[in-house]
Amino acid sequence: MREKELSAFVESHLGEAIEDLRRLCRCPSVSAQGSGREETPELVAELLKRSGFEVEIFPTPGYPIVFGEARGRSPFTLLFYNHYDVQPPEPLEEWASPPFELAEREGKLFARGVADNKGDIVARLLAVRAVREVLGELPIHIKFLIEGEEESGSPNLPAFIEEHRELLTADGCIWEAGEVDWEGRPILALGVKGLLYVELEARGASTDLHSSMAAIIPNPAWRLVWALSSLKDIAERILIPGFYERAKPPDERERKAASSLPLHEEKLKGDLGIEEFVLGLSGDALKLRHLLEPTCTICGLQAGYTGRGSKTVLPSRASAKLEFRLVPGQDPGEIFSLLKKHLSERGFGDIEIRFLDGIRPARTPLDHPFILKVEEAAAKAYRRDPVIIPTFAASGPMALFSEDLGIPTVSCGIGYPESRPHAPNENIRVEDLKRGAFFCALLICELGGNPGRGLEIGGNELRS
Amino acid sequence: MREKELSAFVESHLGEAIEDLRRLCRCPSVSAQGSGREETPELVAELLKRSGFEVEIFPTPGYPIVFGEARGRSPFTLLFYNHYDVQPPEPLEEWASPPFELAEREGKLFARGVADNKGDIVARLLAVRAVREVLGELPIHIKFLIEGEEESGSPNLPAFIEEHRELLTADGCIWEAGEVDWEGRPILALGVKGLLYVELEARGASTDLHSSMAAIIPNPAWRLVWALSSLKDIAERILIPGFYERAKPPDERERKAASSLPLHEEKLKGDLGIEEFVLGLSGDALKLRHLLEPTCTICGLQAGYTGRGSKTVLPSRASAKLEFRLVPGQDPGEIFSLLKKHLSERGFGDIEIRFLDGIRPARTPLDHPFILKVEEAAAKAYRRDPVIIPTFAASGPMALFSEDLGIPTVSCGIGYPESRPHAPNENIRVEDLKRGAFFCALLICELGGNPGRGLEIGGNELRS
Repeated sequence: MREKELSAFVESHLGEAIEDLRRLCRCPSVSAQGSGREETPELVAELLKRSGFEVEIFPTPGYPIVFGEARGRSPFTLLFYNHYDVQPPEPLEEWASPPFELAEREGKLFARGVADNKGDIVARLLAVRAVREVLGELPIHIKFLIEGEEESGSPNLPAFIEEHRELLTADGCIWEAGEVDWEGRPILALGVKGLLYVELEARGASTDLHSSMAAIIPNPAWRLVWALSSLKDIAERILIPGFYERAKPPDERERKAASSLPLHEEKLKGDLGIEEFVLGLSGDALKLRHLLEPTCTICGLQAGYTGRGSKTVLPSRASAKLEFRLVPGQDPGEIFSLLKKHLSERGFGDIEIRFLDGIRPARTPLDHPFILKVEEAAAKAYRRDPVIIPTFAASGPMALFSEDLGIPTVSCGIGYPESRPHAPNENIRVEDLKRGAFFCALLICELGGNPGRGLEIGGNELRS
Repeated sequence: MREKELSAFVESHLGEAIEDLRRLCRCPSVSAQGSGREETPELVAELLKRSGFEVEIFPTPGYPIVFGEARGRSPFTLLFYNHYDVQPPEPLEEWASPPFELAEREGKLFARGVADNKGDIVARLLAVRAVREVLGELPIHIKFLIEGEEESGSPNLPAFIEEHRELLTADGCIWEAGEVDWEGRPILALGVKGLLYVELEARGASTDLHSSMAAIIPNPAWRLVWALSSLKDIAERILIPGFYERAKPPDERERKAASSLPLHEEKLKGDLGIEEFVLGLSGDALKLRHLLEPTCTICGLQAGYTGRGSKTVLPSRASAKLEFRLVPGQDPGEIFSLLKKHLSERGFGDIEIRFLDGIRPARTPLDHPFILKVEEAAAKAYRRDPVIIPTFAASGPMALFSEDLGIPTVSCGIGYPESRPHAPNENIRVEDLKRGAFFCALLICELGGNPGRGLEIGGNELRS
């Protein structure tokens, strides 16, 4: 493998990639606000074509999906999943420079979407060009699926994937984004938690009443509080029968990997102004809980009067936003049924339960041959052992790829701990952009392998 | 007693009283909005003077208090407590005629404050004029205390009463307002519940966080829900140690009186769109609970995201408005201490408890001689047995009079079940206005008594 040449190509073409990134960031592709819906996929398609991809833009009821494919020597196919949409830039006044204008300061690039995940798109395309230039060909097939609604829950992605299973066949998937830790170790994440998001609503009288009626007229705020307190006890134990039984316990390797998560406890407590973590946990127990345990979270509460001072009112309705983060084995639809059954059996059949969102958990095994290859390439590119965690604590549509299409999937990217995705002054370090491109180039070459060396991946024989 | 003459005077001077009421309603004395602060007490003073009262207007930090006194033959002193302020008229679009312009339709008078309680002021003054005209003198002393901030919690009344205890000496007090039931029986209420209104606030991290952090970062919404559910169980039992022990149990007469409350269960359920009352109660048990039991009511809940759809947020704070209605023996300050102690002992010392409002309960004994006189006059005036209830379910500053000044107090007035106080299209029936004035005239005469007949009232001998 010609590491030096790859590195030199990335180095000498970095300015070009930054110019691509500048153009991409200039598109205000905020899916939540409906902006940038035409020009952004067009530009993405142009960038893919310039890197040698055949491109098709698939319309959807929302933002179009851009698909690119470049054929290479071996039958191994690597799929990159990315998105060209970004979070809203607000609050604008907190940005040191305009959010849609790439600004370079002290070795960092600032703009909305630069870390999540437009920087990853240009880094990955730069890697493809580097490999093609240095090897004279691509050693593997490469596909890009770049959607435009990830920040809005990817509403049109499942139908697209269902309709284009053949097109999306691949032996490994690199997920949209990620970061290195403070020690410069790349974090490789092999899964996401699932999600069930519901709204509970209790109703009393048809209108708010004077609270002097509360002795005899049912109070939906009390019904809601009692129903919620039946779901989780003060020791943080979720009380819905069957909830934990569905969860597949993590194996010893996953537990060990979870404990490798970089988590600076004192800094985090200080930054957030808290005295203790949940249950007073610390160390490995804290990391394991963060990554491997399901949660039940009240995200919102609303009833009656919430302004200043007092108002003697008996509310006519009370509602809660309730979220569950799920681990492998727990299906959002099934947990929704268990929740309904529990509330009904506990006497809360009067409380309406509305399903708002469901995302399945996803996890690729730590010992999958594709993951070992990614690990190897990362160790070479970053000159440090990567941090491999079994899952993010957050959720995303990864199961569409890893579970439905059966593609082993790993998330990694060009961010760092202060990239501030979703927040003002989102930024990346130029050094990380370069290193990320170099890593992808090495990975493509590694996956191309050497003649005579086989790699069993997801039932596909990597021959080369 | 010259009932017919009194009745004839009221009848022939009713138009005059309605004109007074028209002028009074034209003053937009909304204490919550700061309007009508000068002209309304001036007009009230003018009306008192025209009915033969010596008047003084006492400034306060808020709306002035108007005090009137008229001396009569016997040493018995009757005090009328009223207020010249009214609730805000909003929502304006729901009024069939302008809220501050008295409108007569189908035997009813419509305007903001007409039932609560400007109509009572003019009815009571008409009664005084009737008695003076028919008897040639007042048989008793009469005092009026008319404040301007009752609808805003009477913030300046306690200090005024404390400073003017001598001025306010009286042997009986007629409280601001009330109504007849659908059968035309006047409702005499001898007390109010007390009130404790607090705000609870739980805090987590210093800012809202992504909910994927919820496995390890404390959630104030859960803390609040758990704390609230420790206060009252699903069987409506309040769990604060000592809470019920403070309550003086109602005696058999009070229980019997409470069960006489007119409460049309099916109509009320239909109007409010509810299937059942609290605990499935009905009949006497329902009435007793409504009037004689203390309550613990969530008036408001607020945490995190409460808009449409889902937002995966871990709230940084959660708060509840919590109200207790109290019965005799329960002091708001003491209950506040019990609440604090309970939460602290149950491990919720992290939850901040803010005192927002406190009103003491008040109750005059059913067998007080003054009450018997009021009952007698009401039976004569309305030609029906009055409904005597030991207390309202609501609260008010009655303890300042009945407990602090030791004046037996009874509430009654010129409203009817559809008067809609505090709501659009507030109204009274002209017939009730007339009947109410006649009743007050009879009462004044009854309290004047007959020579040689004594009435022991609050330590004062009613001689004459």
